[in-house]
Amino acid sequence: MVSGRTIASLVAAFALAGCVSITVGDEMTVPLSIAKQGSFFVGGRDVQSDNLSLLPAYAPSGTITVDQMYVRYQVPADVKGTPIVLIHGCCLTGKTWETTPDGRMGWDEFFLRKGNPTYVVDQSWRGRSASDISTINLVKAGKAPVDKLPTVFAAGHEGAWAIFRFGAKYPGVFPGMRYPLDAQGEFWKQMVPDWLNAAPNPTPTIANLSTLAVQLKGVVLMSHSQSGIFPFQAAALDTNGIKAIVAVEPAACPDPKADLKPFTKMPILVLFGDNVDIVPRWAPRLKLCREFVDATNKAGGNAALWLLPDMGIKGNSHMLMQDNNSLEIAGMLSGWIAKHAP
Amino acid sequence: MVSGRTIASLVAAFALAGCVSITVGDEMTVPLSIAKQGSFFVGGRDVQSDNLSLLPAYAPSGTITVDQMYVRYQVPADVKGTPIVLIHGCCLTGKTWETTPDGRMGWDEFFLRKGNPTYVVDQSWRGRSASDISTINLVKAGKAPVDKLPTVFAAGHEGAWAIFRFGAKYPGVFPGMRYPLDAQGEFWKQMVPDWLNAAPNPTPTIANLSTLAVQLKGVVLMSHSQSGIFPFQAAALDTNGIKAIVAVEPAACPDPKADLKPFTKMPILVLFGDNVDIVPRWAPRLKLCREFVDATNKAGGNAALWLLPDMGIKGNSHMLMQDNNSLEIAGMLSGWIAKHAP
Repeated sequence: MVSGRTIASLVAAFALAGCVSITVGDEMTVPLSIAKQGSFFVGGRDVQSDNLSLLPAYAPSGTITVDQMYVRYQVPADVKGTPIVLIHGCCLTGKTWETTPDGRMGWDEFFLRKGNPTYVVDQSWRGRSASDISTINLVKAGKAPVDKLPTVFAAGHEGAWAIFRFGAKYPGVFPGMRYPLDAQGEFWKQMVPDWLNAAPNPTPTIANLSTLAVQLKGVVLMSHSQSGIFPFQAAALDTNGIKAIVAVEPAACPDPKADLKPFTKMPILVLFGDNVDIVPRWAPRLKLCREFVDATNKAGGNAALWLLPDMGIKGNSHMLMQDNNSLEIAGMLSGWIAKHAP
Repeated sequence: MVSGRTIASLVAAFALAGCVSITVGDEMTVPLSIAKQGSFFVGGRDVQSDNLSLLPAYAPSGTITVDQMYVRYQVPADVKGTPIVLIHGCCLTGKTWETTPDGRMGWDEFFLRKGNPTYVVDQSWRGRSASDISTINLVKAGKAPVDKLPTVFAAGHEGAWAIFRFGAKYPGVFPGMRYPLDAQGEFWKQMVPDWLNAAPNPTPTIANLSTLAVQLKGVVLMSHSQSGIFPFQAAALDTNGIKAIVAVEPAACPDPKADLKPFTKMPILVLFGDNVDIVPRWAPRLKLCREFVDATNKAGGNAALWLLPDMGIKGNSHMLMQDNNSLEIAGMLSGWIAKHAP
């Protein structure tokens, strides 16, 4: 029996073979054809501790491995573009880039369908990348004072509301705001505790991103929010393998007065949504990024800043990859990547 | 230009259409054809806390969502079998079922290639499923004594060695042991802190698995180690949606003297590797599972216990889904599932 799905597979295969042309719509709906998928870790450091456990079933002393970065990857059967590394922000994991809270396609699948291999990471000490909890047991056993406890935080819904620019203050909503608020509860489930301040400083994620870029011999590092600065810090370590940087709503850009030479070696795109200038937390960040982009270009680089409302696209929140026009924005980024990092 | 990969896609598509037959080898190497993939959460509970953060940048008070279970799924273009939910064990995440430490195909992809939709979860309070860290801040702020700190542990390499039955005692190795020890370091990177004892009891994972099974209207729940008992506990809540249970090296089976009626409603397979009887931690677990299987069959159920060495397959560790014969074992399970939960 030949099913509709089977026909769709055939059409996809014929299209891949150049027999028929497919429209963008088809490309986004036919079955995915994936040459290779899987996961691995980058980096990692062995740590000896006598405070791994206070439970009789598990030994207190031993070695654990931390600092490694989990990477899940997919390579399309028909590679048409540069691999993209997707790096999530504060209090989130790689889930950021997968299915949206209201069930639409995430950017991981969008870029895969566009022909880019995708590498979705969990920052070191987050999600599937191990944190070191031994100081909790150290303090619990009375062997150290409470100030030795790890600095770890969780973002509450009410506080995160303004940070993610759903509105100026919880539960107010910016006019025309594009986040799918009907599925807001599903977004809150994406949030996990943030161990960044308990991890080594600088975060091992930076060196791990650099290693990954070198290993893959050419990638686009696409960051978001908290991770916005990481690709730049990775480039400062080693520009090899970094074909382009796309910083989506970065919490920070590099200091415009710092050594900008590494950032002149690859095209850079900084992207912001709407209502940035009216939110006190975000306005100075946009300003810094503008100055960085200008300074980088003056130093001979190729950097751009896209402020979506200036381009006629209104209402985007901080979580643009999940907003109701997320694939439109992904399409714009895909075009930029195809042009600047082919 | 028609590349090798494109030809492989075409062959796959023709095979799907029934034009050509493909051997098992082909089925495992042609590009994956995936109708749908993505991720979502099951469950979740809102918690109010005044101890979310001690950092000035994040509010101390607010609401967080915990207890939800992260699920990543893939549906093949040509569905040929029952959806399989893959549930990891202690100190691990859904990574368990993905690429092996030495880079071979994981069981998630194997079953997908066999035509089963796969659902890989992170237990509640693990990996991409949020834990509640607020008691750490409560104690750090001096508002509660240290015994209020969460019970959390990390498994050290040396202690885990015997638990995972790589050998009787670290660093000794059982003769003919099949775990890829050359890539052992990559296995240790899979381990994350275990918050099970800090989470609500019983773990929300159980109710979440039940909800997922009902939602998907028929699944195989495949557990490992720590999670071994969870599918049985889910079945005790509600047998709806649970077409079969496959318990891989369960840390516990249900009490043979308990109410076994729920476990007579679906076929059950319990699977153990080698050297179980000579490891003090594992011998009683095998004994209990044997008694459970016998009692369930006497109560009118359909339960089986496979002890691999009794079937002529020697050398398997506790991590059989990553051993050097992992796909051979997956093939046996695939056959059992096709027969008992078609």
